[in-house]
Amino acid sequence: MMILVTPERRLRGFFMSAASTIETASVGAVTPQVARFSEPLPLRCGRTLEGFELVYETYGTLNAERSNAVLVCHALNASHHVAGHYADAPENTGWWDNMIGPGKPVDTRRFFVIGVNNIGGCHGSTGPLSLNPQTGKPWGGDFPLVTVEDWVDAQRRLADRLGIERFAAVMGGSLGAMQALAWSARYPDRLRHSIVIACAPNLSAQNIAFNEVARQAIITDPDFNDGHYRERGAAPKRGLRVARMVGHITYLSDDEMAIKFGRQLKNGRLGYTFDTEFQIESYLRHQGNKFADYFDANTYLRITKALDYFDPAGEHGGDLAAALRPVRAGVLVISFSTDWRFSPERSREIVDALLKNRARVTYAEIDAPHGHDAFLLDDPRYHRLVAAYFDRIGAEAAA
Amino acid sequence: MMILVTPERRLRGFFMSAASTIETASVGAVTPQVARFSEPLPLRCGRTLEGFELVYETYGTLNAERSNAVLVCHALNASHHVAGHYADAPENTGWWDNMIGPGKPVDTRRFFVIGVNNIGGCHGSTGPLSLNPQTGKPWGGDFPLVTVEDWVDAQRRLADRLGIERFAAVMGGSLGAMQALAWSARYPDRLRHSIVIACAPNLSAQNIAFNEVARQAIITDPDFNDGHYRERGAAPKRGLRVARMVGHITYLSDDEMAIKFGRQLKNGRLGYTFDTEFQIESYLRHQGNKFADYFDANTYLRITKALDYFDPAGEHGGDLAAALRPVRAGVLVISFSTDWRFSPERSREIVDALLKNRARVTYAEIDAPHGHDAFLLDDPRYHRLVAAYFDRIGAEAAA
Repeated sequence: MMILVTPERRLRGFFMSAASTIETASVGAVTPQVARFSEPLPLRCGRTLEGFELVYETYGTLNAERSNAVLVCHALNASHHVAGHYADAPENTGWWDNMIGPGKPVDTRRFFVIGVNNIGGCHGSTGPLSLNPQTGKPWGGDFPLVTVEDWVDAQRRLADRLGIERFAAVMGGSLGAMQALAWSARYPDRLRHSIVIACAPNLSAQNIAFNEVARQAIITDPDFNDGHYRERGAAPKRGLRVARMVGHITYLSDDEMAIKFGRQLKNGRLGYTFDTEFQIESYLRHQGNKFADYFDANTYLRITKALDYFDPAGEHGGDLAAALRPVRAGVLVISFSTDWRFSPERSREIVDALLKNRARVTYAEIDAPHGHDAFLLDDPRYHRLVAAYFDRIGAEAAA
Repeated sequence: MMILVTPERRLRGFFMSAASTIETASVGAVTPQVARFSEPLPLRCGRTLEGFELVYETYGTLNAERSNAVLVCHALNASHHVAGHYADAPENTGWWDNMIGPGKPVDTRRFFVIGVNNIGGCHGSTGPLSLNPQTGKPWGGDFPLVTVEDWVDAQRRLADRLGIERFAAVMGGSLGAMQALAWSARYPDRLRHSIVIACAPNLSAQNIAFNEVARQAIITDPDFNDGHYRERGAAPKRGLRVARMVGHITYLSDDEMAIKFGRQLKNGRLGYTFDTEFQIESYLRHQGNKFADYFDANTYLRITKALDYFDPAGEHGGDLAAALRPVRAGVLVISFSTDWRFSPERSREIVDALLKNRARVTYAEIDAPHGHDAFLLDDPRYHRLVAAYFDRIGAEAAA
């Protein structure tokens, strides 16, 4: 693990002091809430949402100074359900439950944590499944293409609604980290820290290529019908399944796949058929089927596009430091050694740009075998680092 | 470029002496030939082909001693058309025309070169498009799953037919290299040299995963019909297109994609639609469309399976040296630094196993930016190395 400290060296060694054993618990049963916004939201694509709803969850208690709020931004297929479970579905655990809860790295005894489903999503916030007020029918394929910046703008409205003038931190992994980074440049006075995990300052041609394959699998599925499949009682599940399989390959490292699956056969011997023969095939098919059953294809298409579009430097002639010049937050950047989707090199571009601006940046590259997915797993070094960083944030907030 | 020499160090420096400028020409207009074999061919899958045909081309002249024959094995989507062009289709150039011809690395003024389409293929040799003698209808989805070893066995019959007791060399890149390697272990007395380029001793879980995504895209295409699509006048082109797009990403390096396409936009600005926006999307769609128009899906499925199955060490408890113990040929192994499909590490496994057996092996890792596709390109260092190796083979043959 490599630590790169701010120019002021203020953070050196802070993470070493974190307790190595912490009593942890779940936030318990949680209930999503809905916030309705009637003021039009102009989008990057040139269109405007006349109004919108955001589904969100909160864990912990907002303090009297309203200084302990942490916004968690979700990545590709996740949602507002970040931690805890639902009373009527105890097995439905939040996607970052190992990170957020009492005694966990983001300790809900100390912080008020908010998870929010983004617009364009399929978990309750306004998106392709919602009714288009102009037609009274579901948006489907007519829902606008949304961007990271649009999401951040919508989240800002939620912050206003909740009376949060300044977040203690905005955090996320992968696409969620892009939102945390966008927050720090777009609304520099609205957050004290930005936690940017397994991120890249933009997608490479190879990243875009994988997204494009996923999109083409969906769009060319005969059941896609230009995104208006629900009204026919259908869904492009075949395409969505293939899209998810492609995605999954990029989330795992080659090494992790070798360790987990290698060339293991499902039935001990080759069958010389197109049925599942290798364990890795079984795993991918299972992931694909599961995803195709619960996720909406129109949302998947839009989320891959938001990834492709994100490029803060693009508007500054490719100068990332210029794009990040407004940043006032302290930024924690974490990468994982075997993440080939958003490699450590890409995270270091963000760190270098921030250092050029003499911004407060802490960087850690965690030597983990799990590829891009590592940001969701509970590697103890990773979690200890986040815990220590939030300890400091908490101390600042109390000071 | 790194050179690793045989235990006897006989080859050191030999490649330095190759002329750096060579007058090259095309082999000119060529004509495919057909060899019909009526003796049954038992296959690894347990089934037997009662008879089969191989389409092949030859370039250069077999010498009186029949000692100058070179067999070129093809990879995924290629064929017997290795060099030259067709009189009625002058633009249809062989897939390794830069490697094979008068004055080229494999010099047809000196060597008699054979290109052959494998069984299960879709370029004329017996495969899913052929008539099943049992039914009088095209095999389609009923054609057996074939393996690298089956291909080598069929090629051995062609060698017998052409009166070639011993090849000067068997060569190939990628899946073609697996055949060259299989030749050296399966028929050690039938070749003097094996040229193994951009190869791996077996597929990793990640490699299999990419193949499986490609297969699932094809198999779940509603036009696939269990492989019996031709009789309905249809073809699973959507699936084949996506399969090819996935494949293409793995042939190019991340760097090469970044240099060639980066984040360049097709129309200079974002359109916020699902039409082509980035150049890389345009490239992939073009490659996918082209492939889906000319290639047969049943063949593609079988070729990906042959790749998955290839694992000589698998039958020796994972001991590659034991699997390669029969090898008598001199082996030239070449890898490319940015090939992440079959990385240099994988080639080195082959080299290590051969060195363990004290076999004659020469290894070169070429520092090239082009990823797996590099084996098809005319990098001068790569071609000079092959030219020098064939110079030596030619000298041996004449001696």
